[in-house]
Amino acid sequence: MKNRPESRTIEFMAVGSELLTPYFLETNSLYIAEKLQELGWQLSYKTVVSDRLEELKQAIKIARKRSWLILVCGGLGPTDDDRTRRATAEVLGRKLVFNRAILDGIRKRFESRGLRLPASNRRQAYVIEGAEVLENPNGTAPGLWLEDKNRVLVLLPGPPSEFKPMVENLVLPRLEKFGRVRVLRSVIRITGAGESMVEDLIKPVYKVLPPGLQLITLASPADIQIRLEMAIRCRRPEIDEKSFNRVKAKIIRLLGNLVYSSEGQPLESVVGEKLRAGGWTLACAESCSGGLLANRITNIPGSSDYFLEGIVTYSNRSKTRELGIPERLIKDKGAVSEQVARLMAERMRARSGADFALSTTGIAGPGGGSPDKPVGLVYVGLAFASGSAVTRNLFRGSREQVKFQTTQKALDMLRLKLMEIKKEGLPA
Amino acid sequence: MKNRPESRTIEFMAVGSELLTPYFLETNSLYIAEKLQELGWQLSYKTVVSDRLEELKQAIKIARKRSWLILVCGGLGPTDDDRTRRATAEVLGRKLVFNRAILDGIRKRFESRGLRLPASNRRQAYVIEGAEVLENPNGTAPGLWLEDKNRVLVLLPGPPSEFKPMVENLVLPRLEKFGRVRVLRSVIRITGAGESMVEDLIKPVYKVLPPGLQLITLASPADIQIRLEMAIRCRRPEIDEKSFNRVKAKIIRLLGNLVYSSEGQPLESVVGEKLRAGGWTLACAESCSGGLLANRITNIPGSSDYFLEGIVTYSNRSKTRELGIPERLIKDKGAVSEQVARLMAERMRARSGADFALSTTGIAGPGGGSPDKPVGLVYVGLAFASGSAVTRNLFRGSREQVKFQTTQKALDMLRLKLMEIKKEGLPA
Repeated sequence: MKNRPESRTIEFMAVGSELLTPYFLETNSLYIAEKLQELGWQLSYKTVVSDRLEELKQAIKIARKRSWLILVCGGLGPTDDDRTRRATAEVLGRKLVFNRAILDGIRKRFESRGLRLPASNRRQAYVIEGAEVLENPNGTAPGLWLEDKNRVLVLLPGPPSEFKPMVENLVLPRLEKFGRVRVLRSVIRITGAGESMVEDLIKPVYKVLPPGLQLITLASPADIQIRLEMAIRCRRPEIDEKSFNRVKAKIIRLLGNLVYSSEGQPLESVVGEKLRAGGWTLACAESCSGGLLANRITNIPGSSDYFLEGIVTYSNRSKTRELGIPERLIKDKGAVSEQVARLMAERMRARSGADFALSTTGIAGPGGGSPDKPVGLVYVGLAFASGSAVTRNLFRGSREQVKFQTTQKALDMLRLKLMEIKKEGLPA
Repeated sequence: MKNRPESRTIEFMAVGSELLTPYFLETNSLYIAEKLQELGWQLSYKTVVSDRLEELKQAIKIARKRSWLILVCGGLGPTDDDRTRRATAEVLGRKLVFNRAILDGIRKRFESRGLRLPASNRRQAYVIEGAEVLENPNGTAPGLWLEDKNRVLVLLPGPPSEFKPMVENLVLPRLEKFGRVRVLRSVIRITGAGESMVEDLIKPVYKVLPPGLQLITLASPADIQIRLEMAIRCRRPEIDEKSFNRVKAKIIRLLGNLVYSSEGQPLESVVGEKLRAGGWTLACAESCSGGLLANRITNIPGSSDYFLEGIVTYSNRSKTRELGIPERLIKDKGAVSEQVARLMAERMRARSGADFALSTTGIAGPGGGSPDKPVGLVYVGLAFASGSAVTRNLFRGSREQVKFQTTQKALDMLRLKLMEIKKEGLPA
């Protein structure tokens, strides 16, 4: 077992004092974890270390002791505090050797932009003895690939725009030679139920989970993901595949309509596809979601094919003037009411000529709540050819979380309506 | 120097195999880094480790060797793979002792919700010998505070909703006793210029940077932050303060109108304050930004005081019907044109009765571009009492980045207009 890379220790190390401040979140490790997963491998350690030489050397020493593969990023730049090359060379007891080809390459980069090579970039042309140079098409810092006592050490630049293509094009193909494992993977996305309800519903699955199938639940307000992963053991791929698909199908069956995607898509994309498939159009009238609903819908490329128009009637006057909501109704029932939500959706549908119209009105907070109508109270309306529907919701969380849950509910009401229409062969 | 906590080694360790997958980004360390900064301290290492016992023990051993303060989070839950207590006890060579008071507390939590205490939670009532218990008001896992050979080891639960209040209320007050340093801090926010232009403009500042003043630049499309930080050395606080303020003032002077906030506020908040101060109102008509502009404006609590209404005229027909943009004009000049942007703003202003109206029209991509009108071409309009203005912009990046830059430009045009009005004492 210990010979196989999937059971060996792999460590990711990010170098840079800025990564230890509150302002920079290191995200290269997520990318690495994802790419290693494609090989069926996983990380054992992530380390973030400053660019102080002694601390950096210590961290590399520790990594060498415990890990088979060490992926280091950052600290290869031209300035004084870029010390990864030097620290690694000292730990390995190897020399730094000047490499003319690298310097020529860096010089060309500068000259192509009409600039002279700064003296400081010269240090980037030094290579650790015995290392293979990994070309960096998007920056001046080349990467280095080192093999040492059956260990692999890879040095890569920190900026994601340089790091990612080098991992994809240079590092993964080299790692693949050590053996890859095929991994089955699915993301089931759910809305309309809380985490504990979802956990309860899928409980029967845990009893039949085949060995090696990993099930991870990621929950945020109004959005839950169930991630399934399983490495295929080479001897019987069909059996593994069959049991993976059986589990996936069982989860989808148990959750029924709560599942909006079994392929990891966001809700606005699922709804967009259904609208496009039916040749239908959409408009929306927002109050408390304040434009977020239109914004999510229009984040999908090509949404102009089905999204006609949105309106944000934030003031009561604009509700009256733009959508003809009677002042009297707002006075009697309040702008946050079932009746206003319904009328907003219906009037928006009529005025835009869209097949469907969504509406939102509620109290996003943090202020503006009352005992009768607390922060988080939101009515969501949906108008269609044969009528309209309104839901009353009580969302928890910050202003932005309430806004998000509002739009999630609106999109989901439309999704369920579109499914019903399709099932029953109805017109919109 | 070595006696002072600000020059000692501090390590943050996050425990949990899920943190080594591509799906979970550990963010507690940012919070810790921010809180330590308030004391004038900084992190030297961040480590993420799986919940496998041997790896966890190794990581704690290493941390004990190199660090004075070790903050561990995660792995204190009730399940089998929560091993932080056990691993720490074994490394320190101390016993785990059953603590009845903790168990009673956990039982009460369950009973208050009408539930019985699950057997698995019993393990959370075990305490490492000699540790001080840190109460967790938001969960079942208590924290532990350990002092050992002049080292401090703190174990805390992983969920941010439990971790953060415990850090704030229990850990920081205890750390403060080791000595705090006052830190001056400012965040200057900039839009309307790229990173290299900003760096060029503030170059003179680098020459007069007093020792100990840290300047960090964070750049993203259409938004740049300059963060200033300086620990005050106790002997001469006024001198430090004066030189800090001098640098800050110099940066603001060099950047002039590019600075939209010297206190770290987002642009939508700065604009909102100016509108409120002048008693003015705003409306917007969006095409390519698709609701993001209204969404950003309404993310600010209380924005209903000045934001009247938004409209997302995504289709050409809705531009004509809602805003009276002549079909002929759209046909001749295109929906993405200076003329359409101007008319959208002017008509929106007239129709809403707002003092100001913003408009956006452009090609967000990834499709829809042409040699004449490439992806990223965006016109932004602003209408006011005495006229209107339109800018032509060419933004780079993804669909969502183009949308963001569009809204940033719109808000900034309004900000500059409001400053001009105020300066010249004009009516809106």
